[in-house]
Amino acid sequence: MPKISNKGRAMPESPIRKLVPYAEAAIKKGRVIYQLNIGQPDIKTPAKALAAVKNADIEVLSYSHSAGFESYRNKLATYYKKHDINVSLEDLIITTGGSEALLFTMGSICDVGDEVIIPEPFYANYNGFATSSGVTVVPVKSKFEDGFALPPISEFEKLVTPKTKAILICNPGNPTGYLYTQEEIQQLAEIVKKHDLFIVADEVYREFAYEGAKHYSIMSVPGIEQNAIMIDSVSKRYSMCGARIGCMASKNKEVMSTAMKFAQARLSPPTFAQIASEAALDTPQEYFDEVIEEYSSRRNTLVKGLEKIDGVRVANPKGAFYCIAELPVKDAEDFAKWLLESFQLDNETIMVAPAAGFYSTPNTGLNQVRIAYVLKEENLLRALEILKAALKEYKG
Amino acid sequence: MPKISNKGRAMPESPIRKLVPYAEAAIKKGRVIYQLNIGQPDIKTPAKALAAVKNADIEVLSYSHSAGFESYRNKLATYYKKHDINVSLEDLIITTGGSEALLFTMGSICDVGDEVIIPEPFYANYNGFATSSGVTVVPVKSKFEDGFALPPISEFEKLVTPKTKAILICNPGNPTGYLYTQEEIQQLAEIVKKHDLFIVADEVYREFAYEGAKHYSIMSVPGIEQNAIMIDSVSKRYSMCGARIGCMASKNKEVMSTAMKFAQARLSPPTFAQIASEAALDTPQEYFDEVIEEYSSRRNTLVKGLEKIDGVRVANPKGAFYCIAELPVKDAEDFAKWLLESFQLDNETIMVAPAAGFYSTPNTGLNQVRIAYVLKEENLLRALEILKAALKEYKG
Repeated sequence: MPKISNKGRAMPESPIRKLVPYAEAAIKKGRVIYQLNIGQPDIKTPAKALAAVKNADIEVLSYSHSAGFESYRNKLATYYKKHDINVSLEDLIITTGGSEALLFTMGSICDVGDEVIIPEPFYANYNGFATSSGVTVVPVKSKFEDGFALPPISEFEKLVTPKTKAILICNPGNPTGYLYTQEEIQQLAEIVKKHDLFIVADEVYREFAYEGAKHYSIMSVPGIEQNAIMIDSVSKRYSMCGARIGCMASKNKEVMSTAMKFAQARLSPPTFAQIASEAALDTPQEYFDEVIEEYSSRRNTLVKGLEKIDGVRVANPKGAFYCIAELPVKDAEDFAKWLLESFQLDNETIMVAPAAGFYSTPNTGLNQVRIAYVLKEENLLRALEILKAALKEYKG
Repeated sequence: MPKISNKGRAMPESPIRKLVPYAEAAIKKGRVIYQLNIGQPDIKTPAKALAAVKNADIEVLSYSHSAGFESYRNKLATYYKKHDINVSLEDLIITTGGSEALLFTMGSICDVGDEVIIPEPFYANYNGFATSSGVTVVPVKSKFEDGFALPPISEFEKLVTPKTKAILICNPGNPTGYLYTQEEIQQLAEIVKKHDLFIVADEVYREFAYEGAKHYSIMSVPGIEQNAIMIDSVSKRYSMCGARIGCMASKNKEVMSTAMKFAQARLSPPTFAQIASEAALDTPQEYFDEVIEEYSSRRNTLVKGLEKIDGVRVANPKGAFYCIAELPVKDAEDFAKWLLESFQLDNETIMVAPAAGFYSTPNTGLNQVRIAYVLKEENLLRALEILKAALKEYKG
C-alpha cells in the first residue's frame, strides 16, 4: 500500500473544524447549538448580487480571463479608490476567495523554505497555505493584555533572517478583532523598507470598523508601493462566503506577473460568482450602514455580557466580528468539547473555537477562545446565559 | 525594493498563453483568428444546469461543506457507477476545477522535493501545480510514432527513485488525444503495486471517446484501490469551463482525510457552480450523444484535412478533443508567432499551441503543434485552408 509523504507535509488541522465531530454527535442527541465558532454571517447577501446571477444570459459557461473579468477589475479599482487604495485593473488579480490570493502571494514571493513573520494569534488557515506552499511561518507574539496591538518592532527585527520574505498581517484581525492604528501601519512600513521585505495585508474585514475608527490600508502608505500586497475577498463584505471570490492587489509588477502564472495554471476564477461580485459593487451605502450598525450593536452586547461573567476577560475588538476571551478554565479546548459532549441548558449549548489553534507557539492561549458575533442579538444573549451557566457547572 | 525568491520558484509560463500578446496585436490590426490553441468548447452548456442557478433560492450565499454539497457528491457517485467507477460520497471531494484536485493530490501525497512521473507530452499546467507544491516532475517519453501510446513499463522503472510518489496520466490525453487501452491501464496497475506508488489519473475527458472505443478508468482496476486517485471536472463534460468545479476521488482514506485538510483551509468550492454541476447530472443522454457525434465528426474532418497537407503528419486521436500534428517546419513556435504577426489569408489567420511546451525534456517536439478541434466544422475547414497556405508561404 502506498504511503503518503509525512502525511502531506504535516498539514495542520483547522482548529475551527476540530470540534465538528463533537457538534455532530450533540446534534444527533437533539441538542440545539449556538455557533459562535465560525465566521459565517447570517446577514443577507445584497439583492443586486443575487439578481445579477439570475438575470445573466449565458449559453456557454466559458473560462473567463485568468485575472478575472476586466469589467469587474475596473469597477473594483473604483471601489478601492473610495477607500484611499489607489490601484487600477492591472494591479488586481481576481482569485477564488481570499484563500487563493494568499496561496498565489506565498507562491510568488517565496521559494520553498522561505519564512513569513506573522503576529500571533492569527487566522489558522495561514498555516495551511504556508504548508501547501512549503513556506515556514515565524510567529511574533501579540498580547492579550495589550488588546493584541502590534508587537514592538524590535520583536519583529529579532526574527528577520536571510530567508524572511514578508510580514503578514490581518487588519482588522481575525481572530483578535484588533484594528491597527495609522502609527502601527507606519511602523510596519518602516521595517519592511529597512529590511526589503514584503508586507502582505489581509484586509477582508476592512469595512468592519466600529466606534468611528478608521481602517488604514497598507496600500495607502507612501513609499512602500513596491513592498505592499493586499489580500481581499467579497465573503464578509457582502455576506457572500459561498461565492469564493477574492482579490490580490499590488503595484509591484514583478509580483503581479509572477502571480499571473499561478492564475493561468488554474485557468480562471468562477464565472457566476464574478457576476455576483461585480453587481455587488452597486450595493447602496445604506446596506453597509445597516450591517455595521448591526455588528456594532452585537459587539457591544457580547462584550458587555462577557465582562459580566465571573472570571471572563475580553480583548475589546475594534473591527471584524471576532473577539478573544479569556475564560476561568485551564484548557479551553477541553471546555469546548465538554460544552458539546456533556453540557446543556434546557437542551441548548454553545460552540466556541479554542484559541490555542490560532497560535503557532505551543501551549499558548490555552485558556482563550475565539467568539464570532455573527448571530442575532437575542441569540447572543442566550449564548451568554449558556456560557455563564456552563462555566459554573464546569468549575464545580 | 523587495525581491521575489527565484521569481516564484521559476513558475513556468503556460505555452498556451505565450502567444496571447501576438494574438492581441493581430486582433488590433483587424485580423480574424481561428483559435485552435485552447480547449474552450463552443458547445452549449446544458439548459438544466443554467436553469438551476437561475431558480436557486438563496438569501445568504454561505460557505458549503468543504468537500462540497452532500447531495451533489451522492448524485455524482451514482453517475460514476454508470462508468464502472465504484465510489460513494465519502470517497469524493468537490474541488474548484480539476486544477485544485491536482493541487490537493500533489500536496497530500508528496512532500516538498518528491517526484511524480508523467508521460510526456503532458498538460502543461501539471508543471504549474508541481511548482506550486514544490514537487518535481519526471517525464517519461511517449512517442509520436506510436500515436503516444503508453511508454514501455521498463522506461518507467528506470525512473523510479525513493522519492517517486506517483505516476500521473491524463486519459484520454490532453494534448495527445490518446486513449489508453485496458491492457495499458493494467500495466500501470502492476507497476504501481510493485513499487507502492500512487497512480493519479486525470479523467476529465472520460466521456470523449470515439470510434466506439471504451474508456477504462483507473478506479475500475481491482487490487489498486489504495493506489488510485482520480481527477475529474465538469468543465469539458458539460461545456462548463467557467463553473470551476472538479473532483478528487479515491478509496484511500489516508489520502482523502489529508486532502480534506487542504479543502478545509480554503473553506469550500463555489456554491453557484455546485448548484449548476449538480443539476447538470440530470442532462439527458441525447445531449452527450449529440456532443460526441459532433466532436467525432470534427475530428474526422480535421485529421483528414491535416493528412492532405504536404509534410503534415497527425497522431490520430481516439479521445478528448486535441491532436498533435507534426509540421514541415523546424520551429513550430516561430511558425505560430509568424502566423499571428506576419501571415493572413483574406485577413484571416489561425492560432495553434506549439507542442514543445507540453514536453518537459528540452528541445523536444519542436516541429509539433497541438490543435484543439473545438470549432464548428466549417471553421475547421477554413482553418485547414489557412494552415495549408501558410505552410506554403512560410517555407518559401
